[in-house]
Amino acid sequence: MSEIKLIEGSVCAAKGFKASGIHCGIRKNKVKKDLALIVSEKRATAAAVYTTNLVKGAPLTVTKKHLSDGYAQAVICNSGNANTCNADGIEVAENMSALIADELKINKDDIIVASTGVIGQKLDITPIKEGIPSLCANLKCDGVDAAEGIMTTDTVKKEVAVSFCIGGVECKMGGIAKGSGMIHPNMATMLVFITTDAAISAKMLHKALSGDITETFNMLSIDGDTSTNDMVAVMANGMAGNKEITEEGEDFATFCKALNTLTVQLCRMIAGDGEGATKLLQCIVTGAKTKEAAKTAAKSVICSSLTKAAMFGADANWGRVLCALGYSGADIDVNKVDVHFSSPKGKILVCKDGAGVDFSEEIAKDILLEKEIDILVDLNDGEADSVAWGCDLTYDYVKINGDYRT
Amino acid sequence: MSEIKLIEGSVCAAKGFKASGIHCGIRKNKVKKDLALIVSEKRATAAAVYTTNLVKGAPLTVTKKHLSDGYAQAVICNSGNANTCNADGIEVAENMSALIADELKINKDDIIVASTGVIGQKLDITPIKEGIPSLCANLKCDGVDAAEGIMTTDTVKKEVAVSFCIGGVECKMGGIAKGSGMIHPNMATMLVFITTDAAISAKMLHKALSGDITETFNMLSIDGDTSTNDMVAVMANGMAGNKEITEEGEDFATFCKALNTLTVQLCRMIAGDGEGATKLLQCIVTGAKTKEAAKTAAKSVICSSLTKAAMFGADANWGRVLCALGYSGADIDVNKVDVHFSSPKGKILVCKDGAGVDFSEEIAKDILLEKEIDILVDLNDGEADSVAWGCDLTYDYVKINGDYRT
Repeated sequence: MSEIKLIEGSVCAAKGFKASGIHCGIRKNKVKKDLALIVSEKRATAAAVYTTNLVKGAPLTVTKKHLSDGYAQAVICNSGNANTCNADGIEVAENMSALIADELKINKDDIIVASTGVIGQKLDITPIKEGIPSLCANLKCDGVDAAEGIMTTDTVKKEVAVSFCIGGVECKMGGIAKGSGMIHPNMATMLVFITTDAAISAKMLHKALSGDITETFNMLSIDGDTSTNDMVAVMANGMAGNKEITEEGEDFATFCKALNTLTVQLCRMIAGDGEGATKLLQCIVTGAKTKEAAKTAAKSVICSSLTKAAMFGADANWGRVLCALGYSGADIDVNKVDVHFSSPKGKILVCKDGAGVDFSEEIAKDILLEKEIDILVDLNDGEADSVAWGCDLTYDYVKINGDYRT
Repeated sequence: MSEIKLIEGSVCAAKGFKASGIHCGIRKNKVKKDLALIVSEKRATAAAVYTTNLVKGAPLTVTKKHLSDGYAQAVICNSGNANTCNADGIEVAENMSALIADELKINKDDIIVASTGVIGQKLDITPIKEGIPSLCANLKCDGVDAAEGIMTTDTVKKEVAVSFCIGGVECKMGGIAKGSGMIHPNMATMLVFITTDAAISAKMLHKALSGDITETFNMLSIDGDTSTNDMVAVMANGMAGNKEITEEGEDFATFCKALNTLTVQLCRMIAGDGEGATKLLQCIVTGAKTKEAAKTAAKSVICSSLTKAAMFGADANWGRVLCALGYSGADIDVNKVDVHFSSPKGKILVCKDGAGVDFSEEIAKDILLEKEIDILVDLNDGEADSVAWGCDLTYDYVKINGDYRT
């Protein structure tokens, strides 16, 4: 299988993609961009997955309809307003699609439309309409502005790109994401837009994406709240010139590996920049009886408020990890569980066979004061493993969410 | 059915019960009591329910064995250490039972033993052994010291008592509880000890308790973490002199109503004193298709970190309530949902038919600045209803749990 290389760039790393981002006026804060655009030179195969929340943002309904034929050519996304729980939501989302399609002279059914921000406030189309000419005029081969345009409470923009080979032809893939609260994806995820110049059929693109998210975005939680507007969308425009991937095999495996390399990086970025977060937490579960048990256990640890608060305080309170494993619902033997905490500063055993061991609190503290912490759980009960990502629970999470709307 | 009256007192309100609480030295802080005792003059029928966490405190295993015959005469409970995930945990819990049984000259199999506090630190029997004579010498007809002895991060003691009539005979029932973190009961609950002088068979007592908790403690969440040491235990010593309740009927219904009156009060007390909480939240769901849908929906709202943080900030961010309903898994039609916020300051409609309505942010703020907030959700889709209790998410929750062990 071809090697996957991390490269510079994001949604414009692959051939034929341009992007832009502007402040159009949805947000009061004029320094923050609030409208983003990604366009492919050619019509691309496209796939997306959506939140399982019954309360769904209007843009998701419109995007789902547009992607029913497996093709798209552009993404338009605003931040600052989720266009969710609004009586006129569908109309506004369709309007956004139509306006950008007119300006780009492409089919309005080839538009992926997305919104993120406050739920239940009407989204005024006027600033979007007025901003679209400038949004299109500013299109360039650089994803930075678009990455900024989709940010809400994110403190850093999230961009990744990789290169890989399909049948000897170099392909590229890039993505941008926005976190950073209401993140607990469930068979879907937050906003992520991925572009690639690899040629792949719509069917196989959907297969690659829906397989990938079960091990990546669905293993990520910031605060346990599954958003109403989650979406990951991929466009593949085929401009790299490889033979189109239309079935399983080595090429498809390479494509999936490239996609996974990219999505794991985005997961880590989203988790590390969770609302108020000071630390990226990664829970690695090994030795599980089944894949399902490994995933359930890892996600339960990452979602535990008490474990998250302990990590904020650099407190090696492993009892909370055991507690979260115990109530996870996973089929595990609690008397076999070993737990280590690990970071660039070292690795320390804190629990063996489900019971505490003597350890240096001082060394543990030193390890836990780092910015990236691994919670290593060995269930010693099988061969399956899994990884989940999250962040610590901090004063700033409360601050950010205590009065988000003002 | 007999009227249920709230009366003064707690676990000593019913005839024949005495209690005490002391500082024996498990905690370093000498001002905080750490050992509690409740004793019945006569052997009592007894029932208990326990946490479903696979990681279980050693005392639960010992108590379960002791209650297998349906009888008990005393409760001993320490705070400051959970006696959980310790290799010698069972031995220590059995030792606690034997020591108190010896001192009280009762059968060691009639002891309910419980521990609460840090997980995974060895519980030294020495201070308990040395404290038991003083614990027994201080027994009195007042539950206050015992209520204090079981507190961990609770800021107030939690006591309730009720009186009711069974067949014309006045009976009393009282209870104490400890919260206030790692509270997300699941088919069981935090520590609650209830005493009554009503005569009721062990079988019917268990039936009453296990039925009650599905509508009370299981509808309570502070932080989503189901504890390893949850337990509710009830002792009924029959000293009121009523005809023993041995089957369903009016007397059993009265007993259940008395129990429910008491447990609802304890739930509200636990929720209102959740770790770091400034507000008691009560989510009342009406108009659900099924009881299960009502419960799932109410609990999801109460567990949502974002809703909890918004309530802390007195921010009428109803979109987060809709979001939590949407991902709850309950069978609901999101386009029919109405939401009001209510408190002693008034009641305000914020969402109608799943979409926002115009409302005064000023009035909403005024309502949400109160200490007890009702989130009223009408699903307009059936006849079932449910109530769940929780609290807001605050800086102090993070502070308390950022370094709980020091």
